[in-house]
Amino acid sequence: MKKAIVLLSGGLDSTVTLAYALSEGREVIPVSFRYGQRHSRELEAAKAVTSHYGLKHHVVIDLDLSAYRKSALTSKDVKVPKRGSVSEIKEGIPSTYVPARNIIFLSIAAGVAETEGADEIFIGANSIDYSGYPDCRPEFFEAFEEALRKGTKAGVEGKAVRVVHPILRMTKAEIVLLGKELGAPLNLTWSCYEGGSMACGRCDSCLLRLKGFEEAGFKDEIEYEVVR
Amino acid sequence: MKKAIVLLSGGLDSTVTLAYALSEGREVIPVSFRYGQRHSRELEAAKAVTSHYGLKHHVVIDLDLSAYRKSALTSKDVKVPKRGSVSEIKEGIPSTYVPARNIIFLSIAAGVAETEGADEIFIGANSIDYSGYPDCRPEFFEAFEEALRKGTKAGVEGKAVRVVHPILRMTKAEIVLLGKELGAPLNLTWSCYEGGSMACGRCDSCLLRLKGFEEAGFKDEIEYEVVR
Repeated sequence: MKKAIVLLSGGLDSTVTLAYALSEGREVIPVSFRYGQRHSRELEAAKAVTSHYGLKHHVVIDLDLSAYRKSALTSKDVKVPKRGSVSEIKEGIPSTYVPARNIIFLSIAAGVAETEGADEIFIGANSIDYSGYPDCRPEFFEAFEEALRKGTKAGVEGKAVRVVHPILRMTKAEIVLLGKELGAPLNLTWSCYEGGSMACGRCDSCLLRLKGFEEAGFKDEIEYEVVR
Repeated sequence: MKKAIVLLSGGLDSTVTLAYALSEGREVIPVSFRYGQRHSRELEAAKAVTSHYGLKHHVVIDLDLSAYRKSALTSKDVKVPKRGSVSEIKEGIPSTYVPARNIIFLSIAAGVAETEGADEIFIGANSIDYSGYPDCRPEFFEAFEEALRKGTKAGVEGKAVRVVHPILRMTKAEIVLLGKELGAPLNLTWSCYEGGSMACGRCDSCLLRLKGFEEAGFKDEIEYEVVR
Protein backbone atom coordinates (compact mmCIF):
# COMPACT_ATOMS: atom_id res chain seq x y z
CA MET A 1 0.00 0.00 0.00
CA LYS A 2 1.49 3.31 -1.08
CA LYS A 3 1.86 5.93 1.63
CA ALA A 4 0.98 9.55 0.95
CA ILE A 5 1.07 12.80 2.86
CA VAL A 6 -2.04 14.93 2.30
CA LEU A 7 -1.89 18.64 3.11
CA LEU A 8 -5.18 19.12 4.92
CA SER A 9 -6.32 22.64 5.81
CA GLY A 10 -9.87 21.59 6.62
CA GLY A 11 -11.31 23.40 3.61
CA LEU A 12 -13.34 21.97 0.76
CA ASP A 13 -10.44 21.53 -1.65
CA SER A 14 -8.04 19.74 0.67
CA THR A 15 -10.81 17.50 2.01
CA VAL A 16 -11.81 16.40 -1.49
CA THR A 17 -8.10 15.83 -2.22
CA LEU A 18 -7.83 13.63 0.87
CA ALA A 19 -10.94 11.67 -0.18
CA TYR A 20 -9.37 11.23 -3.61
CA ALA A 21 -6.05 9.94 -2.19
CA LEU A 22 -7.96 7.41 -0.09
CA SER A 23 -10.05 6.35 -3.09
CA GLU A 24 -6.82 5.72 -4.98
CA GLY A 25 -5.81 3.24 -2.29
CA ARG A 26 -3.22 5.36 -0.51
CA GLU A 27 -2.38 4.99 3.16
CA VAL A 28 -2.87 8.63 4.08
CA ILE A 29 -1.07 10.75 6.67
CA PRO A 30 -2.76 14.17 6.85
CA VAL A 31 -0.51 17.13 7.72
CA SER A 32 -2.05 20.37 8.99
CA PHE A 33 -0.56 23.62 10.21
CA ARG A 34 -1.20 25.98 13.06
CA TYR A 35 0.53 28.97 11.49
CA GLY A 36 -1.04 31.97 13.10
CA GLN A 37 -4.27 31.92 11.13
CA ARG A 38 -6.76 34.51 12.32
CA HIS A 39 -8.92 31.72 13.74
CA SER A 40 -8.73 28.00 14.53
CA ARG A 41 -11.99 27.10 12.82
CA GLU A 42 -10.26 25.59 9.80
CA LEU A 43 -7.96 23.42 11.92
CA GLU A 44 -10.98 22.14 13.87
CA ALA A 45 -12.53 21.20 10.54
CA ALA A 46 -9.33 19.34 9.59
CA LYS A 47 -9.55 17.35 12.80
CA ALA A 48 -13.22 16.54 12.18
CA VAL A 49 -12.41 15.28 8.68
CA THR A 50 -9.53 13.20 9.99
CA SER A 51 -11.80 11.62 12.65
CA HIS A 52 -14.50 11.01 10.06
CA TYR A 53 -12.07 8.83 8.12
CA GLY A 54 -10.66 7.20 11.26
CA LEU A 55 -7.12 8.35 10.45
CA LYS A 56 -5.09 8.00 13.62
CA HIS A 57 -1.85 9.66 12.63
CA HIS A 58 -2.66 13.34 11.97
CA VAL A 59 0.48 15.47 12.00
CA VAL A 60 -0.23 19.03 13.17
CA ILE A 61 2.77 21.31 12.82
CA ASP A 62 3.15 24.46 14.87
CA LEU A 63 4.72 27.17 12.81
CA ASP A 64 4.81 30.73 14.03
CA LEU A 65 4.49 32.94 10.99
CA SER A 66 3.83 36.12 12.90
CA ALA A 67 6.79 37.60 11.02
CA TYR A 68 4.36 37.57 8.08
CA ARG A 69 2.51 40.67 8.95
CA LYS A 70 1.09 41.63 5.63
CA SER A 71 -1.44 38.95 4.70
CA ALA A 72 -5.13 39.21 5.52
CA LEU A 73 -5.04 35.52 6.51
CA THR A 74 -2.55 35.98 9.32
CA SER A 75 -2.96 39.59 10.39
CA LYS A 76 -5.97 41.22 11.98
CA ASP A 77 -4.66 44.57 10.71
CA VAL A 78 -5.42 43.60 7.13
CA LYS A 79 -9.10 43.25 6.31
CA VAL A 80 -10.50 40.23 4.50
CA PRO A 81 -12.23 41.73 1.45
CA LYS A 82 -16.00 41.27 1.41
CA ARG A 83 -18.07 41.35 -1.77
CA GLY A 84 -21.56 40.71 -3.09
CA SER A 85 -20.71 38.17 -5.76
CA VAL A 86 -17.94 36.25 -7.50
CA SER A 87 -17.91 38.70 -10.41
CA GLU A 88 -16.54 41.37 -8.07
CA ILE A 89 -13.40 39.36 -7.27
CA LYS A 90 -10.46 41.25 -8.65
CA GLU A 91 -7.74 39.93 -10.95
CA GLY A 92 -4.22 39.50 -9.65
CA ILE A 93 -2.67 38.40 -6.38
CA PRO A 94 -5.18 38.82 -3.52
CA SER A 95 -4.50 40.33 -0.08
CA THR A 96 -5.05 36.88 1.41
CA TYR A 97 -1.80 35.71 -0.26
CA VAL A 98 0.68 34.55 2.40
CA PRO A 99 4.24 34.89 1.04
CA ALA A 100 5.68 31.51 0.06
CA ARG A 101 3.00 29.61 2.00
CA ASN A 102 2.68 26.59 -0.27
CA ILE A 103 6.46 26.40 -0.62
CA ILE A 104 6.76 26.28 3.15
CA PHE A 105 3.94 23.76 3.58
CA LEU A 106 5.29 21.52 0.81
CA SER A 107 8.82 21.70 2.23
CA ILE A 108 7.67 20.60 5.65
CA ALA A 109 5.44 17.93 4.10
CA ALA A 110 8.48 16.71 2.15
CA GLY A 111 10.39 16.35 5.42
CA VAL A 112 7.53 14.43 7.00
CA ALA A 113 7.23 12.28 3.86
CA GLU A 114 10.90 11.40 4.02
CA THR A 115 10.64 10.59 7.72
CA GLU A 116 7.55 8.43 7.18
CA GLY A 117 8.72 6.76 3.99
CA ALA A 118 5.89 8.29 1.94
CA ASP A 119 6.60 8.99 -1.70
CA GLU A 120 3.82 11.41 -2.54
CA ILE A 121 2.40 14.66 -1.22
CA PHE A 122 -1.18 15.40 -2.24
CA ILE A 123 -2.09 19.08 -2.29
CA GLY A 124 -5.52 20.55 -3.01
CA ALA A 125 -4.16 23.48 -4.98
CA ASN A 126 -6.37 24.91 -7.64
CA SER A 127 -5.34 27.17 -10.48
CA ILE A 128 -8.79 27.86 -11.94
CA ASP A 129 -10.67 29.72 -9.26
CA TYR A 130 -7.54 30.97 -7.50
CA SER A 131 -5.31 31.83 -10.41
CA GLY A 132 -4.00 34.78 -8.40
CA TYR A 133 -1.80 32.63 -6.14
CA PRO A 134 1.56 32.01 -7.84
CA ASP A 135 2.23 28.92 -5.73
CA CYS A 136 -0.88 27.19 -7.11
CA ARG A 137 0.48 27.06 -10.65
CA PRO A 138 1.63 23.82 -12.35
CA GLU A 139 5.02 25.33 -13.26
CA PHE A 140 5.67 26.01 -9.60
CA PHE A 141 4.98 22.40 -8.62
CA GLU A 142 7.34 21.18 -11.34
CA ALA A 143 10.12 23.48 -10.14
CA PHE A 144 9.52 22.44 -6.55
CA GLU A 145 9.73 18.73 -7.43
CA GLU A 146 13.07 19.43 -9.08
CA ALA A 147 14.29 21.08 -5.86
CA LEU A 148 13.26 17.91 -3.97
CA ARG A 149 15.11 15.74 -6.47
CA LYS A 150 18.27 17.78 -5.90
CA GLY A 151 17.96 18.64 -2.23
CA THR A 152 16.74 15.62 -0.28
CA LYS A 153 18.19 12.28 0.67
CA ALA A 154 15.26 10.54 -1.04
CA GLY A 155 15.95 12.60 -4.17
CA VAL A 156 19.64 11.73 -4.22
CA GLU A 157 18.64 8.07 -3.90
CA GLY A 158 16.30 8.41 -6.90
CA LYS A 159 13.13 8.20 -4.83
CA ALA A 160 12.21 11.89 -4.62
CA VAL A 161 8.84 12.70 -3.13
CA ARG A 162 6.37 13.70 -5.83
CA VAL A 163 3.73 16.42 -5.61
CA VAL A 164 0.24 15.30 -6.68
CA HIS A 165 -2.40 17.97 -7.31
CA PRO A 166 -5.52 16.12 -8.46
CA ILE A 167 -7.89 19.11 -8.50
CA LEU A 168 -5.49 21.66 -9.98
CA ARG A 169 -7.48 22.29 -13.13
CA MET A 170 -10.99 21.63 -11.81
CA THR A 171 -13.62 24.31 -11.34
CA LYS A 172 -15.18 24.62 -7.91
CA ALA A 173 -18.30 22.89 -9.23
CA GLU A 174 -16.22 19.94 -10.43
CA ILE A 175 -14.53 19.74 -7.02
CA VAL A 176 -17.93 19.63 -5.30
CA LEU A 177 -19.10 16.91 -7.72
CA LEU A 178 -15.95 14.85 -7.12
CA GLY A 179 -16.38 15.26 -3.37
CA LYS A 180 -20.00 14.12 -3.56
CA GLU A 181 -19.06 11.17 -5.77
CA LEU A 182 -16.40 10.08 -3.26
CA GLY A 183 -18.72 10.58 -0.29
CA ALA A 184 -16.40 13.19 1.25
CA PRO A 185 -17.76 14.88 4.40
CA LEU A 186 -18.18 18.31 2.82
CA ASN A 187 -20.49 19.34 5.67
CA LEU A 188 -17.50 19.19 8.04
CA THR A 189 -15.29 21.50 5.98
CA TRP A 190 -14.63 25.19 6.53
CA SER A 191 -13.71 27.56 3.71
CA CYS A 192 -14.57 31.00 5.12
CA TYR A 193 -11.64 33.36 5.73
CA GLU A 194 -13.36 34.49 8.91
CA GLY A 195 -13.79 32.28 11.95
CA GLY A 196 -17.30 32.88 13.26
CA SER A 197 -19.83 30.24 14.24
CA MET A 198 -21.24 30.54 10.74
CA ALA A 199 -19.43 31.20 7.46
CA CYS A 200 -19.67 34.87 6.43
CA GLY A 201 -20.89 34.21 2.89
CA ARG A 202 -19.21 37.34 1.56
CA CYS A 203 -15.45 36.70 1.45
CA ASP A 204 -13.91 35.43 -1.79
CA SER A 205 -13.60 31.93 -0.43
CA CYS A 206 -17.29 31.72 0.63
CA LEU A 207 -18.44 33.22 -2.68
CA LEU A 208 -16.46 30.72 -4.76
CA ARG A 209 -17.67 27.83 -2.62
CA LEU A 210 -21.32 28.86 -2.81
CA LYS A 211 -21.09 29.30 -6.57
CA GLY A 212 -19.45 25.86 -6.87
CA PHE A 213 -22.23 24.13 -4.95
CA GLU A 214 -24.86 26.00 -6.92
CA GLU A 215 -23.35 25.06 -10.28
CA ALA A 216 -22.90 21.47 -9.16
CA GLY A 217 -26.58 21.34 -8.20
CA PHE A 218 -26.01 20.53 -4.54
CA LYS A 219 -26.95 22.33 -1.37
CA ASP A 220 -24.00 23.46 0.78
CA GLU A 221 -24.89 22.06 4.18
CA ILE A 222 -22.83 24.42 6.30
CA GLU A 223 -24.50 27.51 7.75
CA TYR A 224 -23.98 31.01 6.38
CA GLU A 225 -24.60 34.41 7.97
CA VAL A 226 -25.88 35.78 4.68
CA VAL A 227 -28.80 33.77 3.37
CA ARG A 228 -29.10 33.89 -0.42
CA MET B 1 21.05 49.92 0.75
CA LYS B 2 20.15 46.39 -0.30
CA LYS B 3 18.25 44.34 2.26
CA ALA B 4 19.17 40.72 2.87
CA ILE B 5 17.89 37.91 5.04
CA VAL B 6 20.71 35.88 6.64
CA LEU B 7 19.94 32.40 7.96
CA LEU B 8 21.74 32.47 11.29
CA SER B 9 22.04 29.27 13.31
CA GLY B 10 24.66 30.65 15.65
CA GLY B 11 27.36 28.38 14.27
CA LEU B 12 30.68 29.34 12.72
CA ASP B 13 29.53 29.13 9.10
CA SER B 14 26.36 31.19 9.40
CA THR B 15 28.13 33.80 11.53
CA VAL B 16 30.90 34.27 8.95
CA THR B 17 28.18 34.46 6.30
CA LEU B 18 26.44 37.21 8.27
CA ALA B 19 29.73 39.09 8.67
CA TYR B 20 30.24 38.78 4.92
CA ALA B 21 26.76 40.11 4.08
CA LEU B 22 27.41 43.13 6.34
CA SER B 23 30.84 43.69 4.76
CA GLU B 24 29.12 43.75 1.35
CA GLY B 25 26.99 46.63 2.56
CA ARG B 26 23.72 44.79 3.07
CA GLU B 27 21.11 45.82 5.57
CA VAL B 28 20.82 42.46 7.31
CA ILE B 29 17.80 40.78 8.92
CA PRO B 30 18.95 37.57 10.62
CA VAL B 31 16.43 34.71 10.73
CA SER B 32 16.87 31.87 13.22
CA PHE B 33 14.78 28.84 14.09
CA ARG B 34 13.66 27.12 17.24
CA TYR B 35 12.87 23.80 15.60
CA GLY B 36 13.15 21.26 18.36
CA GLN B 37 16.94 21.13 18.44
CA ARG B 38 18.26 18.96 21.24
CA HIS B 39 19.49 22.08 22.97
CA SER B 40 19.12 25.88 22.83
CA ARG B 41 22.84 26.60 22.96
CA GLU B 42 23.08 27.38 19.25
CA LEU B 43 20.15 29.79 19.36
CA GLU B 44 21.73 31.60 22.32
CA ALA B 45 24.86 31.95 20.22
CA ALA B 46 22.77 33.39 17.38
CA LYS B 47 21.36 35.99 19.76
CA ALA B 48 24.84 36.86 21.03
CA VAL B 49 26.09 37.36 17.47
CA THR B 50 23.08 39.51 16.63
CA SER B 51 23.68 41.69 19.70
CA HIS B 52 27.36 41.94 18.88
CA TYR B 53 26.46 43.56 15.57
CA GLY B 54 23.69 45.68 17.09
CA LEU B 55 21.07 44.21 14.77
CA LYS B 56 17.70 45.08 16.24
CA HIS B 57 15.37 43.06 14.05
CA HIS B 58 16.21 39.38 14.64
CA VAL B 59 13.41 37.11 13.42
CA VAL B 60 13.20 33.90 15.45
CA ILE B 61 10.71 31.42 14.02
CA ASP B 62 9.13 28.72 16.13
CA LEU B 63 8.74 25.57 14.12
CA ASP B 64 7.83 22.32 15.79
CA LEU B 65 9.57 19.57 13.87
CA SER B 66 8.93 16.86 16.43
CA ALA B 67 7.31 14.90 13.60
CA TYR B 68 10.93 14.47 12.45
CA ARG B 69 11.85 11.70 14.76
CA LYS B 70 14.77 10.21 12.95
CA SER B 71 17.54 12.78 13.00
CA ALA B 72 20.20 12.92 15.68
CA LEU B 73 19.83 16.72 15.69
CA THR B 74 16.18 16.70 16.80
CA SER B 75 15.75 13.39 18.60
CA LYS B 76 17.34 12.29 21.84
CA ASP B 77 16.74 8.68 20.76
CA VAL B 78 19.34 8.98 18.01
CA LYS B 79 22.91 9.36 19.22
CA VAL B 80 25.23 12.04 17.86
CA PRO B 81 28.23 10.05 16.56
CA LYS B 82 31.47 10.70 18.44
CA ARG B 83 34.88 10.13 16.93
CA GLY B 84 38.56 10.70 17.58
CA SER B 85 39.43 12.62 14.43
CA VAL B 86 38.12 14.01 11.16
CA SER B 87 39.49 11.03 9.22
CA GLU B 88 36.94 8.80 10.93
CA ILE B 89 33.98 10.76 9.53
CA LYS B 90 32.13 8.46 7.17
CA GLU B 91 31.12 9.15 3.59
CA GLY B 92 27.47 9.58 2.72
CA ILE B 93 24.50 11.20 4.39
CA PRO B 94 25.08 11.51 8.16
CA SER B 95 22.59 10.67 10.94
CA THR B 96 22.48 14.37 11.77
CA TYR B 97 20.69 15.01 8.45
CA VAL B 98 17.26 16.54 9.12
CA PRO B 99 14.94 15.74 6.19
CA ALA B 100 14.42 18.78 3.95
CA ARG B 101 15.77 21.17 6.59
CA ASN B 102 17.43 23.70 4.30
CA ILE B 103 14.43 23.61 1.98
CA ILE B 104 12.17 24.44 4.92
CA PHE B 105 14.48 27.16 6.26
CA LEU B 106 14.93 28.73 2.83
CA SER B 107 11.17 28.63 2.16
CA ILE B 108 10.40 30.44 5.39
CA ALA B 109 13.26 32.87 4.76
CA ALA B 110 11.78 33.52 1.30
CA GLY B 111 8.47 34.38 2.91
CA VAL B 112 10.15 36.74 5.36
CA ALA B 113 12.19 38.25 2.50
CA GLU B 114 9.03 38.95 0.53
CA THR B 115 7.36 40.48 3.57
CA GLU B 116 10.38 42.65 4.34
CA GLY B 117 11.17 43.60 0.76
CA ALA B 118 14.56 41.87 0.85
CA ASP B 119 15.85 40.45 -2.40
CA GLU B 120 18.51 38.05 -1.14
CA ILE B 121 18.83 35.21 1.34
CA PHE B 122 22.36 34.51 2.52
CA ILE B 123 22.96 30.94 3.69
CA GLY B 124 26.14 29.55 5.19
CA ALA B 125 25.87 26.22 3.42
CA ASN B 126 29.07 24.42 2.66
CA SER B 127 29.58 21.60 0.21
CA ILE B 128 33.21 20.83 0.97
CA ASP B 129 33.27 19.63 4.54
CA TYR B 130 29.62 18.56 4.57
CA SER B 131 29.23 17.00 1.17
CA GLY B 132 26.88 14.45 2.73
CA TYR B 133 23.98 16.89 3.00
CA PRO B 134 22.08 16.98 -0.30
CA ASP B 135 20.56 20.37 0.51
CA CYS B 136 24.01 21.98 0.66
CA ARG B 137 24.75 21.34 -3.02
CA PRO B 138 24.85 24.10 -5.66
CA GLU B 139 22.38 22.25 -7.90
CA PHE B 140 19.85 22.28 -5.10
CA PHE B 141 20.12 26.05 -4.63
CA GLU B 142 19.64 26.57 -8.36
CA ALA B 143 16.52 24.39 -8.38
CA PHE B 144 15.18 26.16 -5.31
CA GLU B 145 15.69 29.60 -6.88
CA GLU B 146 13.69 28.41 -9.88
CA ALA B 147 10.87 27.35 -7.53
CA LEU B 148 10.91 30.88 -6.05
CA ARG B 149 10.78 32.42 -9.52
CA LYS B 150 7.70 30.35 -10.31
CA GLY B 151 5.94 30.24 -6.95
CA THR B 152 6.14 33.64 -5.29
CA LYS B 153 4.59 37.02 -5.91
CA ALA B 154 8.08 38.55 -6.13
CA GLY B 155 9.03 35.88 -8.67
CA VAL B 156 5.98 36.52 -10.85
CA GLU B 157 6.87 40.22 -10.75
CA GLY B 158 10.42 39.43 -11.93
CA LYS B 159 12.00 40.23 -8.58
CA ALA B 160 12.47 36.70 -7.21
CA VAL B 161 14.50 36.39 -4.03
CA ARG B 162 17.97 35.03 -4.76
CA VAL B 163 19.93 32.56 -2.65
CA VAL B 164 23.50 33.65 -1.91
CA HIS B 165 25.94 31.06 -0.51
CA PRO B 166 29.29 32.83 -0.17
CA ILE B 167 31.14 30.03 1.62
CA LEU B 168 29.73 27.10 -0.36
CA ARG B 169 33.05 25.98 -1.79
CA MET B 170 35.36 27.08 1.02
CA THR B 171 37.20 24.70 3.33
CA LYS B 172 36.66 25.16 7.06
CA ALA B 173 40.11 26.75 7.29
CA GLU B 174 39.16 29.29 4.61
CA ILE B 175 35.94 30.05 6.49
CA VAL B 176 37.90 30.69 9.69
CA LEU B 177 40.33 32.94 7.79
CA LEU B 178 37.46 34.89 6.21
CA GLY B 179 35.82 35.27 9.62
CA LYS B 180 39.05 36.55 11.16
CA GLU B 181 39.60 38.94 8.26
CA LEU B 182 36.09 40.35 8.71
CA GLY B 183 36.44 40.57 12.50
CA ALA B 184 33.51 38.18 13.04
CA PRO B 185 32.91 37.24 16.71
CA LEU B 186 33.90 33.59 16.28
CA ASN B 187 34.27 33.27 20.04
CA LEU B 188 30.51 33.72 20.39
CA THR B 189 29.59 30.93 17.97
CA TRP B 190 28.54 27.39 18.79
CA SER B 191 29.10 24.47 16.44
CA CYS B 192 28.87 21.42 18.73
CA TYR B 193 25.93 19.07 18.12
CA GLU B 194 25.63 18.67 21.89
CA GLY B 195 24.51 21.45 24.20
CA GLY B 196 26.76 21.31 27.26
CA SER B 197 28.52 24.22 28.90
CA MET B 198 31.58 23.32 26.82
CA ALA B 199 31.75 21.94 23.27
CA CYS B 200 32.27 18.16 23.26
CA GLY B 201 35.24 18.19 20.87
CA ARG B 202 34.32 14.78 19.47
CA CYS B 203 31.24 15.17 17.28
CA ASP B 204 31.73 15.69 13.53
CA SER B 205 30.95 19.37 13.84
CA CYS B 206 33.52 19.98 16.60
CA LEU B 207 36.15 17.94 14.79
CA LEU B 208 35.74 19.86 11.53
CA ARG B 209 35.78 23.18 13.37
CA LEU B 210 38.91 22.34 15.33
CA LYS B 211 40.68 21.15 12.20
CA GLY B 212 39.65 24.37 10.43
CA PHE B 213 41.08 26.59 13.14
CA GLU B 214 44.25 24.52 13.27
CA GLU B 215 44.81 24.70 9.52
CA ALA B 216 44.05 28.41 9.52
CA GLY B 217 46.66 28.92 12.22
CA PHE B 218 44.28 30.41 14.79
CA LYS B 219 43.28 29.32 18.24
CA ASP B 220 39.60 28.47 18.67
CA GLU B 221 38.64 30.57 21.68
CA ILE B 222 35.63 28.53 22.81
CA GLU B 223 36.08 25.89 25.49
CA TYR B 224 36.18 22.16 24.75
CA GLU B 225 35.67 19.19 27.06
CA VAL B 226 38.41 17.28 25.28
CA VAL B 227 41.69 19.16 25.32
CA ARG B 228 43.89 18.27 22.36
